[in-house]
Amino acid sequence: MPGLSIFGIPGLPEITPGTDLAGAIHAAAAEAGSPLESGDILVITSKIVSKAEGRIVDLASVEVSPFARQYAERWEKEPAIVELVLSESRRVVRQVGPILITETRHGFICANAGIDQSSSGGHGLAVLLPLDPDESAMRARQALRSKGLDVAVIISDTFGRPWREAQTDIAIGIAGMQPVTSYIGQVDPHGHEFRVQALCTADEVAGAAELVKGNLSRVPCAVVRGLPWEPDDTASMQSIIRDSERDLFR
Amino acid sequence: MPGLSIFGIPGLPEITPGTDLAGAIHAAAAEAGSPLESGDILVITSKIVSKAEGRIVDLASVEVSPFARQYAERWEKEPAIVELVLSESRRVVRQVGPILITETRHGFICANAGIDQSSSGGHGLAVLLPLDPDESAMRARQALRSKGLDVAVIISDTFGRPWREAQTDIAIGIAGMQPVTSYIGQVDPHGHEFRVQALCTADEVAGAAELVKGNLSRVPCAVVRGLPWEPDDTASMQSIIRDSERDLFR
Repeated sequence: MPGLSIFGIPGLPEITPGTDLAGAIHAAAAEAGSPLESGDILVITSKIVSKAEGRIVDLASVEVSPFARQYAERWEKEPAIVELVLSESRRVVRQVGPILITETRHGFICANAGIDQSSSGGHGLAVLLPLDPDESAMRARQALRSKGLDVAVIISDTFGRPWREAQTDIAIGIAGMQPVTSYIGQVDPHGHEFRVQALCTADEVAGAAELVKGNLSRVPCAVVRGLPWEPDDTASMQSIIRDSERDLFR
Repeated sequence: MPGLSIFGIPGLPEITPGTDLAGAIHAAAAEAGSPLESGDILVITSKIVSKAEGRIVDLASVEVSPFARQYAERWEKEPAIVELVLSESRRVVRQVGPILITETRHGFICANAGIDQSSSGGHGLAVLLPLDPDESAMRARQALRSKGLDVAVIISDTFGRPWREAQTDIAIGIAGMQPVTSYIGQVDPHGHEFRVQALCTADEVAGAAELVKGNLSRVPCAVVRGLPWEPDDTASMQSIIRDSERDLFR
């Protein structure tokens, strides 16, 4: 039965600022007996991208504004984290009790601007989202291309969503394949246009990859193999951010 | 490399009211050379569940209210569809121009109450969501159990989401496995609690299954094999609907 196979890439070294991330992933996959192949989609958790890019902040170095300090004290949050969330954001979407949902500098809407204190390589540190996850994905794609591989790359992160409990992994950066599969204008065998007009394949791939990565297992990369995609170096996740004029929930 | 395999089940017959859906899927999988196995997660597109359960409405039989007629005329929508959307809903969440986002009778928030005119088996018909998708999933699970198989079942549908263009498949019904994997109280190697506290595995599985089903390929079922789950017959997708008091976007 043709289908997909999805597997994690274990054995990555600790990632630090300046690590050749694509090189490390390429080597770990080979070492694990599952070398990357052209046609693969490589999904990389944003946190290790951030670490490789030096997006780590020492909380002691953060200058906290009065607004952030007051809010942090009221809700027993860490003042430096609140300050970082605000400075990584361009707009507060909801601020209700201790919950702070913002629009990040990239345009993503999520809790705490995607800032992560877990597994950040030590106490007192926070990991920020990559500055430009599409560009991060493209850098990894190009590094793999220089090794003779045509691989699409997705940078994933774990976001909540309205209306439903628990979170899912979605794509925040992409290179090599378009994130959306469009059915616009196509009709079913009965002549009706499809109710579903466009599927965000990239988000589904990111979620599928999470199933093998897990958040505890320290496997921050996965490969989705067997899903056809058209090489396209104009792809971006920026393109799926809904314009605020068309958005009903901001 | 251990991992997941995901494949579609082709060759299903046309589903009509009263079709033994689990039996038909079981037979089609065997016929395709990939029989279901205990431990599999079977993902079924809600539309064929609805068809098997007779949730098909002849639009000519729908009595249209003045409110629905006025709205349909103003925005060039089909009056009977608007009426069905309202009668399948318990609350209108957003009504902006032609866009109608409601809370369904189950508590899901989506466009047009999940009603589908495409592939509905003929013109002038609409397919409604299953009345109780958790129960539909449990019926399929029990039917497969009677054939000696311990299979988890997810009923999926295609929903939009705020802030991001394009749609993804999510789970609207589940049986046999809990939809959420919780990390609450667990700490990383540095002693920090995880930022991510609970992942909605069921939604990620539904999205992963969409990658092999596709909306055009007429493969309405898929199998996710290799993902461990604990058998639990108390599971439901109702449990992941966020209480309206805790929801910031209703």
